[in-house]
Amino acid sequence: MRHPVGIVGFRGYSGEELVRLLTPRSEIEVLLMEHRADSHDRPRPRGHRGPARIGCAREAVREHGLQVVFLATPPEVSMEVTPWILEAGAKVVDLSGAFRLRTVDNYKRWYKEEHTQAGLLAEAAYGLPEFNREAVRSARLVSNPGCYPTAANLAIRPLVEAGVVDLSHGIVCDAKSGVSGAGRKPSLKTSFCEVAENFSAYSLLDHRHVPEVLLTSGIEEQQFSFTAHLLPLDRGILETIYFRTQGIGDAAELVAIYEKRYAGEQFVRIYDAGQVPDLQAIQRTNFCDIGLKWDKATGRAVVVSVIDNLTKGAAGQAIQNMNLVLGLAEEAGLL
Amino acid sequence: MRHPVGIVGFRGYSGEELVRLLTPRSEIEVLLMEHRADSHDRPRPRGHRGPARIGCAREAVREHGLQVVFLATPPEVSMEVTPWILEAGAKVVDLSGAFRLRTVDNYKRWYKEEHTQAGLLAEAAYGLPEFNREAVRSARLVSNPGCYPTAANLAIRPLVEAGVVDLSHGIVCDAKSGVSGAGRKPSLKTSFCEVAENFSAYSLLDHRHVPEVLLTSGIEEQQFSFTAHLLPLDRGILETIYFRTQGIGDAAELVAIYEKRYAGEQFVRIYDAGQVPDLQAIQRTNFCDIGLKWDKATGRAVVVSVIDNLTKGAAGQAIQNMNLVLGLAEEAGLL
Amino acid sequence: MRHPVGIVGFRGYSGEELVRLLTPRSEIEVLLMEHRADSHDRPRPRGHRGPARIGCAREAVREHGLQVVFLATPPEVSMEVTPWILEAGAKVVDLSGAFRLRTVDNYKRWYKEEHTQAGLLAEAAYGLPEFNREAVRSARLVSNPGCYPTAANLAIRPLVEAGVVDLSHGIVCDAKSGVSGAGRKPSLKTSFCEVAENFSAYSLLDHRHVPEVLLTSGIEEQQFSFTAHLLPLDRGILETIYFRTQGIGDAAELVAIYEKRYAGEQFVRIYDAGQVPDLQAIQRTNFCDIGLKWDKATGRAVVVSVIDNLTKGAAGQAIQNMNLVLGLAEEAGLL
Amino acid sequence: MRHPVGIVGFRGYSGEELVRLLTPRSEIEVLLMEHRADSHDRPRPRGHRGPARIGCAREAVREHGLQVVFLATPPEVSMEVTPWILEAGAKVVDLSGAFRLRTVDNYKRWYKEEHTQAGLLAEAAYGLPEFNREAVRSARLVSNPGCYPTAANLAIRPLVEAGVVDLSHGIVCDAKSGVSGAGRKPSLKTSFCEVAENFSAYSLLDHRHVPEVLLTSGIEEQQFSFTAHLLPLDRGILETIYFRTQGIGDAAELVAIYEKRYAGEQFVRIYDAGQVPDLQAIQRTNFCDIGLKWDKATGRAVVVSVIDNLTKGAAGQAIQNMNLVLGLAEEAGLL
Repeated sequence: MRHPVGIVGFRGYSGEELVRLLTPRSEIEVLLMEHRADSHDRPRPRGHRGPARIGCAREAVREHGLQVVFLATPPEVSMEVTPWILEAGAKVVDLSGAFRLRTVDNYKRWYKEEHTQAGLLAEAAYGLPEFNREAVRSARLVSNPGCYPTAANLAIRPLVEAGVVDLSHGIVCDAKSGVSGAGRKPSLKTSFCEVAENFSAYSLLDHRHVPEVLLTSGIEEQQFSFTAHLLPLDRGILETIYFRTQGIGDAAELVAIYEKRYAGEQFVRIYDAGQVPDLQAIQRTNFCDIGLKWDKATGRAVVVSVIDNLTKGAAGQAIQNMNLVLGLAEEAGLL
Repeated sequence: MRHPVGIVGFRGYSGEELVRLLTPRSEIEVLLMEHRADSHDRPRPRGHRGPARIGCAREAVREHGLQVVFLATPPEVSMEVTPWILEAGAKVVDLSGAFRLRTVDNYKRWYKEEHTQAGLLAEAAYGLPEFNREAVRSARLVSNPGCYPTAANLAIRPLVEAGVVDLSHGIVCDAKSGVSGAGRKPSLKTSFCEVAENFSAYSLLDHRHVPEVLLTSGIEEQQFSFTAHLLPLDRGILETIYFRTQGIGDAAELVAIYEKRYAGEQFVRIYDAGQVPDLQAIQRTNFCDIGLKWDKATGRAVVVSVIDNLTKGAAGQAIQNMNLVLGLAEEAGLL
Repeated sequence: MRHPVGIVGFRGYSGEELVRLLTPRSEIEVLLMEHRADSHDRPRPRGHRGPARIGCAREAVREHGLQVVFLATPPEVSMEVTPWILEAGAKVVDLSGAFRLRTVDNYKRWYKEEHTQAGLLAEAAYGLPEFNREAVRSARLVSNPGCYPTAANLAIRPLVEAGVVDLSHGIVCDAKSGVSGAGRKPSLKTSFCEVAENFSAYSLLDHRHVPEVLLTSGIEEQQFSFTAHLLPLDRGILETIYFRTQGIGDAAELVAIYEKRYAGEQFVRIYDAGQVPDLQAIQRTNFCDIGLKWDKATGRAVVVSVIDNLTKGAAGQAIQNMNLVLGLAEEAGLL
Repeated sequence: MRHPVGIVGFRGYSGEELVRLLTPRSEIEVLLMEHRADSHDRPRPRGHRGPARIGCAREAVREHGLQVVFLATPPEVSMEVTPWILEAGAKVVDLSGAFRLRTVDNYKRWYKEEHTQAGLLAEAAYGLPEFNREAVRSARLVSNPGCYPTAANLAIRPLVEAGVVDLSHGIVCDAKSGVSGAGRKPSLKTSFCEVAENFSAYSLLDHRHVPEVLLTSGIEEQQFSFTAHLLPLDRGILETIYFRTQGIGDAAELVAIYEKRYAGEQFVRIYDAGQVPDLQAIQRTNFCDIGLKWDKATGRAVVVSVIDNLTKGAAGQAIQNMNLVLGLAEEAGLL
């Protein structure tokens, strides 16, 4: 049996990654939903056959019997189309930030816009499977996590839960992302000559991804300092996370906490104490790799967490969520 | 005595390069002419004092006694403002393609637009000082050459003039440019993720810079095959030029032709036979470096010509022309 | 049934690509053959299990019943190990240049070394399946083509065979490659600061890959001018090929020649006349994409041919050859 | 009067930068001191005349009357040659880490080597002119600061001195550097394909530059967490520095502390609160640019400090020190 799924926003980088990962799978039928006609289609060889294109409309959802629709769209588009897609009988995996923050007040604070779908906001399951698997399985609407929070929460939450982070000293998360995280729409900030041979910090202390870390890892805003940076490369996020430990006598104890928490998880990989992953370790994969260094004399710890922003940070995790929603093997098409 | 000069289009890459090269010179007073207000000004440290800003208007030219105005603008803007700038008493160095092609028919063929200033087109001096120095000195309007033709003509014309190129076999010029040559206006084609880790050919056989090579080096279109390519880097042009020689017995003879032609020239540098320059040899300089390889058995020759597209290919050469127009040392501010 | 295959040189970029492409295949058992111990293993997550490692010795070939051994090694190593690997009963797919040139004299001219295995040199099948499929199927020793010649021959030979290239004017092939083509051994030429923001020509007219084009496409040295260039990027080759046509009335005729020649071929894709591929079209795939531009007035043609130098230019094509040697589907593991 | 100065290690990236900055100055005579013959000289155009070359020997120092010798060498070479250069009458500006740490014990802890020149180590003036100008003026031996500590100390020390940093919470310094900081010697870690499209952390908590920050800014090791990262670009360091303030009511107070401390300094530039510099702001200049963000609700602060690692982080600062030693204008050749 084939599962028909739709993609809105298939021309963006996350949308292209969804197409790349889904089209080889024989059990999935991919349909591209034309939300806005634009001319950014790439040149293709003769005879190229991509997935079929359908309208982005209620009837199309019904006619094709779509089981899941991916929204690789800006939040305002996601808020607009989610209600009628759900009504038409498909489930939704939304890659935008529209449904991540639980309350309209929190949304307004961080996104500077009114939220128009308070009910769906409350209903949405936060699609970080490693911490919310059962809710995703039964959800109509899955809110796919932000790229930065995915790398941060997978690294921070197990240690906070284990009680080994001295929160009174706070946690610093210094995050660096490749340019594809900013999307495909041309802008001066992502023009080649402004980014290449350059490196810059942005959204110091007030990035809209911050509340996802606070909500998921259970820490207070004053305990968490986050700054984003733009790397002169295409794909990948590396976060360097600083804190002080309490109740730890050996770096291996930190490694053991991660290994216990992630036993059986297929997409989180832990390194020996003192070894840390780089971006090449995870590019074009759905892995989150985590390594750390700990200083016994002072209890200072540094954790390095890496993901591919388009895979575990967007399309890959969205497919992981789709697999759960459809009752397929969670790792299907991702290993 | 200080020479007041104006720059229209000072926020583009060529305009910024003009500012960078001109502001350290005590004998030049730089004035930025606001043609269109936009918000692309970069953040600056406190206390930063750049050149003064004035309007882009006839009165401003007169009031400030501008002696030269640089136009780092699209051709249609250059056609629009050049007449009244000249009337207001300033000379013009135009970095666009507006005045390079001598006839309105030729302009229309290659630029696909009507030319609105036929008289100025006929009057303009082509600002390749190594071949047109005297005309530039006395010109009201200097048309600064295109970046690709500058590297091509400096490499090709001396050999054609010396009669050592077998034109019946044709000349191939395979040209590669950094992204800054495409200007600062955001577009998908110059977005980081489309350019980095990528390389592409464009304008195969029909680039609008082709006629400048035909006119200056005195060759026929059928004898000249030119393709442009986009390099994943900021600055620099490298052209690889293929042809067959006639009447040559030794590679050193080709080197000698260049050395004789460019004796006394400060911005053209020749390499020993068998050695060729790379982009790092000339980045951020006004040099054109030329090297070659010749195969005695078959008479096949390959010449490599490199320039920085923003310096010798745009702003540097424009300043070289300004120096001539103002009667200053030609190399002032450029070595 | 599983096919055990060995890889010598598995730490280089081509070797890593072989491992990446082969390990997901259930019908292939990959064994890494330690030729020289070195310390370049990358850090790996805990629990990482790569392919098993065995010695690079006759007994290991026999003991594990290796059916094919890949040599991702320098030519001198390939000449040294091929004889005893063949004697031990495995077939060899050699990615080096050791067995590409048919005669010891030709090898000595281009590689500046003596060839020590004249018999194997004469015996080896040239592994360009699109032109030599049957010979590869029955070969003991397959010589995997060079990266540059793969892109060049696939673009040039169909047109030469069809008689539409005016060889009296010659063919120019201007070739540009990413840095991984130079291998993983550290050198100043491939150091980041020497390559990034730089671009350079090398091996003008005398690259050792030239004779592979002459032999395969059936042209004379004097008719073929080739220069290699180093692009500031990891993976990909783009070749811009210039020539004059004869007997052609329309660009579509050139496209038709390619389409007819490559009908049924899975790894060569042709573009509509006037459209050309860039590197992103083929990176991390085994495709060779070909597009062209033709000028009716003068008969000048430009063909753009692109491959990934590590895939169709090395490991991918080697696996295509292995598939033929083992009687598997030619495209297995490559689409 | 011309000042003869020598450069040992002129082929490395810092050495080349010294040559680039010093050769245009008419009052300085540059002499390249051949310490070890190697073949890394770049190809040059015909007629190229670089600085003269002399031996790296006591007699050469005397014969040419060298007033200052720059050592752009590894620490062990600096320890070896400094004594006899001083004896021969020249002053020394050492760009290595040999003389930065005051005591042999501290040197041994961080550099894992014995120090062989304890007397010179104690004598050396630390060449951060903004904090140690008078000592540099009268020094025989100036120890040029490390690149990371230069950016860190200029950002941290004024705030620590003003008492506005809550040291009980510690300071985190997340530092990112371009590849030229690793020197010109080829290694796998700095090979193009390992660095491009990659980003990695190294020397977590134990970088040898850490003690320079502790000594200069007057903080304890337990209060300072530092991690270095390798950016896929040539030149530039950006450090993101996190801490909590005490006694501050407004972000402008932090800006005012910097402005007061750096009044009259030509190479430190401060940004308005909320604005931060990127690498393009300072590349190829001797500036250190500093910007910050402060959160009133929680007292969390983030400071961004940027320098060019080859200029203010190495050769530029070394020339600033030379200017002081020779009694020249401190900014000569650097603005």
